[in-house]
Amino acid sequence: MSLSQADLSTDRPPFSHWIRTSNNVTQQFLAIGGQPDFVSLAGGLPASELYPVDAIKLASTRALERWGSAALEYGPVEGFPALRAAIAERMSKEHRHRFGIENILLTTGAMQGLDLIGKVLIDPGDLIVAQFPTYLGALDAWRTRRPSYRKLDWNLDDPDFLLSLRKAKFVYTVPNYSNPTGALVPQNVRGGLLSRVIEANTWLVEDDPYLPLQLTGAAGPSILAADAATRSEGAYDGPVIYLGTLSKSVAPGLRVGWVVAEPKIIQLLALAKQCSDLSSSMFSQAVALEFLESGAEAEIIPRTVACYRERRDALCAAAQALLSEWFEWEVPPGGMFLWAKGRSPAFDTNQLYSFALREKVAFVPSSVFDPDGALINAMRINFTRNTPDRLEEGVRRLRRAVERYLSEVSNGET
Amino acid sequence: MSLSQADLSTDRPPFSHWIRTSNNVTQQFLAIGGQPDFVSLAGGLPASELYPVDAIKLASTRALERWGSAALEYGPVEGFPALRAAIAERMSKEHRHRFGIENILLTTGAMQGLDLIGKVLIDPGDLIVAQFPTYLGALDAWRTRRPSYRKLDWNLDDPDFLLSLRKAKFVYTVPNYSNPTGALVPQNVRGGLLSRVIEANTWLVEDDPYLPLQLTGAAGPSILAADAATRSEGAYDGPVIYLGTLSKSVAPGLRVGWVVAEPKIIQLLALAKQCSDLSSSMFSQAVALEFLESGAEAEIIPRTVACYRERRDALCAAAQALLSEWFEWEVPPGGMFLWAKGRSPAFDTNQLYSFALREKVAFVPSSVFDPDGALINAMRINFTRNTPDRLEEGVRRLRRAVERYLSEVSNGET
Repeated sequence: MSLSQADLSTDRPPFSHWIRTSNNVTQQFLAIGGQPDFVSLAGGLPASELYPVDAIKLASTRALERWGSAALEYGPVEGFPALRAAIAERMSKEHRHRFGIENILLTTGAMQGLDLIGKVLIDPGDLIVAQFPTYLGALDAWRTRRPSYRKLDWNLDDPDFLLSLRKAKFVYTVPNYSNPTGALVPQNVRGGLLSRVIEANTWLVEDDPYLPLQLTGAAGPSILAADAATRSEGAYDGPVIYLGTLSKSVAPGLRVGWVVAEPKIIQLLALAKQCSDLSSSMFSQAVALEFLESGAEAEIIPRTVACYRERRDALCAAAQALLSEWFEWEVPPGGMFLWAKGRSPAFDTNQLYSFALREKVAFVPSSVFDPDGALINAMRINFTRNTPDRLEEGVRRLRRAVERYLSEVSNGET
Repeated sequence: MSLSQADLSTDRPPFSHWIRTSNNVTQQFLAIGGQPDFVSLAGGLPASELYPVDAIKLASTRALERWGSAALEYGPVEGFPALRAAIAERMSKEHRHRFGIENILLTTGAMQGLDLIGKVLIDPGDLIVAQFPTYLGALDAWRTRRPSYRKLDWNLDDPDFLLSLRKAKFVYTVPNYSNPTGALVPQNVRGGLLSRVIEANTWLVEDDPYLPLQLTGAAGPSILAADAATRSEGAYDGPVIYLGTLSKSVAPGLRVGWVVAEPKIIQLLALAKQCSDLSSSMFSQAVALEFLESGAEAEIIPRTVACYRERRDALCAAAQALLSEWFEWEVPPGGMFLWAKGRSPAFDTNQLYSFALREKVAFVPSSVFDPDGALINAMRINFTRNTPDRLEEGVRRLRRAVERYLSEVSNGET
């Protein structure tokens, strides 16, 4: 799924280096998602029937009545001031510290936060210690800066890991319901990582888009909260760079995300943002503010959690019935994904993928979540975008794909 | 106005290299613009009283009624499909070629187009041939990729210029009412540049945000149109990478811009965009579509042009009366800026700037439009954001600042 030589050939000046080692996996998945006869279990999309269309309509009208032309300005690089203040307030409630607006930068989704962190911290060859397997969007965002990676495998006393922390620009983790694995990092492990980050005096990027999607049990405090609790009053000045978003609890198309970090980092991220797009849509941000103030989010989240819980359970039951002879998994306590690992280390989900496409079902093969592309025996299956019926149909198609893949492999072996 | 050592000191891992050579000029100007007792002639902001608040309110309601949850999705990286098609149609009317949607990428303002072009084409040290003086936003966007520059001074037969074209990744130009100079590049000069770009087989970035702001006479065809006229039917495949925006004809806060280019470039820019923010606000794009289809833009543009023409004339008259003993300028035929050059080559607008701040007036000193920072005897004065009265007050303050600067300089010399 790399870009082909044809994609990259030009008789005009050549493209930059990172593109030559890049892929267009996400674009391919989005394109597949649009075909009606496909069951796409590949994307990371919310259930669009839950988007609060009417409440957003009302919020739009109110935002323009309240703010007038101020909602249509370039606005400050750091974001629409009243929303920035509201997010500071929200973060203060959720993460046990009095965060100031100087701790907050509003971004075009949390994804832009990842891009800006790369711009501010990464030069070619710099080291990132990243939770493994790693969110594809983070690998994408930083690919343009050409970093190197060390896998964070939670063996926190490994001397080689401790050495890598001292060399790294930052650690990257998704402790709540990781993408792709759905895993919840236990509180004691979070604490162990934080103390080693502080000892090594490095940065820690905590990416937390799935916080609202607590399907079984509670997520518990963030790493940001754990660190902030040890800091003095006033603006947060610790090593955690935290990313949040409205994409999972309201709607992704507003593209409202944010970064929480020490003021100096926020200033430099704002400089990088000014160099990227001058500012995000002030209009989207003003509408998001009205929506949040309406209190409608408090109704949406329980409805969303109930819907996703039902879908997760339907997926797990179908997989148990039809896929468990070849795959194993933990039932994810939250988030959007089931991570199915091949019982055989030789099971190759890159190969399975082409059989799946013939059966008109899509998933994400594990290799794309590995900076080295070497992790080949697992797959990420999304459970939020399809109804239980469609999930079951998807799993039936996956079973057929597995059977054909295995029969082809064993034919190849004879 | 460089970032101070204090801004950049940290006991955690250091920031990336480009930041160490960076500045926060734009952030400073935006901050000054917000102080009520200041006359800011510095920004590049439209007249916010012209923003079509009611028409946008109506467009928001209609967009959500028409598109429902589709207006709240992540949406395709390339942009909201119906707006992408509408922009292809608009470009086809304006630039004399049948552009396909495969020639169009929607972006968060034209500024993001500049950032994405940098990501796709620039590695550290790569050469850009840029119209001089150069738009600060372009220098900002590309600074993160650490290019080198050669000044495009329109001496198109200079052998050294012709050699630099062969080495360059691309040429950058703002032919319509350049930022900062307000100059209109004549048609024969555009043709000369295009033919040399084609001979050298390089790319040409045509940045065209001011197209709607034709205050005296017509802008004439774009370089894109001139090139496209020589190409065969079907998707455009020439060397021009064209940037457009709704920021000047509708409102900047929607952050709707676009790139027109050959399909391969559009695909790679889309890949870079996926790595930057996954997608722009679909909601903003759906609202922009409804707004454009309502036809309201056709009423706004003449009103905007009339307003800016009156303001330009007021600024020029005041400057003629109060500043012409020290500065000279061409009356800009369009755009948003007057470019005032010191009659003395020793006049230092960096120094003048601090006197101006004391008089509570701001402009942009010429040095920030020079990749080398060496152009010190001119200034950019915006005429779109303030009423004629405020412009006159601003010029009076500028005159006082000039008098104090000159008296200090002559004191310093004695």
